[in-house]
Amino acid sequence: MQVEHINPFITAVSNTFSMMVQTTADRGQLTLGDPQHRTHPISAIIGLSGRASGTVVINLSESVALAAASALLMEEVSEVNGDVLDAVGELVNMIAGQAKAELAEYELAISLPNVVTGEGHEVRFPSGTAPLCVPFNTEHGPLRLEVGFEPSAAPVAV
Amino acid sequence: MQVEHINPFITAVSNTFSMMVQTTADRGQLTLGDPQHRTHPISAIIGLSGRASGTVVINLSESVALAAASALLMEEVSEVNGDVLDAVGELVNMIAGQAKAELAEYELAISLPNVVTGEGHEVRFPSGTAPLCVPFNTEHGPLRLEVGFEPSAAPVAV
Repeated sequence: MQVEHINPFITAVSNTFSMMVQTTADRGQLTLGDPQHRTHPISAIIGLSGRASGTVVINLSESVALAAASALLMEEVSEVNGDVLDAVGELVNMIAGQAKAELAEYELAISLPNVVTGEGHEVRFPSGTAPLCVPFNTEHGPLRLEVGFEPSAAPVAV
Repeated sequence: MQVEHINPFITAVSNTFSMMVQTTADRGQLTLGDPQHRTHPISAIIGLSGRASGTVVINLSESVALAAASALLMEEVSEVNGDVLDAVGELVNMIAGQAKAELAEYELAISLPNVVTGEGHEVRFPSGTAPLCVPFNTEHGPLRLEVGFEPSAAPVAV
């Protein structure tokens, strides 16, 4: 995966947290994705397809999930329930939607979001794909963005 | 989600296990998806988009994952390692690819597969989507197919 392809997702995370969660998400250093390092208990996953195939994973601490859900639902939420997980799914949907607009040449469409929970869960990408990862810090705690993105040589099926 | 949309995925699971794993996958009763019932420790997820958006989750016991990987890798594998998880990702990729051909009117494209591990993990669909679930039994143990599929009224973005 090329570094230029993750930039629209990094910008989308910052914009979405700024606009929707009213908080600043400060990015850390770009690394190769490694499921061993993805230690937060909630992961939102959304698929990308078109002239590229990929997936976006947002891995969040509970405190960030609660802050994001409280902002999106416009009420204080203090425990991780179905509404919080729906809000986290909507968050990755917004992030992928924004990045898709920046990557117009790939004619991306996005799947339904899934949200994975469970302490110690890992979300693995196919070995060949070399996903890229960026950690972020917010006043509510940490999160991680991970993107796998493979442009396809073949034309899109119609 | 309409029942007719899961049928191509059910057929694809049977065909893929028959052809690639050389085993019969006997389907059980169709139910509404419920993450509480999805108790196997490995889940392969792949996104669908086009004139519908969706995702396919194959939730497998370790014994089924090992049998499938041994067949695909053409060597006996006895522990769940990276190769096994790649094989499980390839399995859901084949299943989605076959079903996509049957659902040609939706012009589906598929994302990269992700594979989730971790005892007790749950994979949740957005609340509004009513995913459908079908359990299967094989001589190697059980697995579950879960599909969320939402036809879109709007034309595909180009």
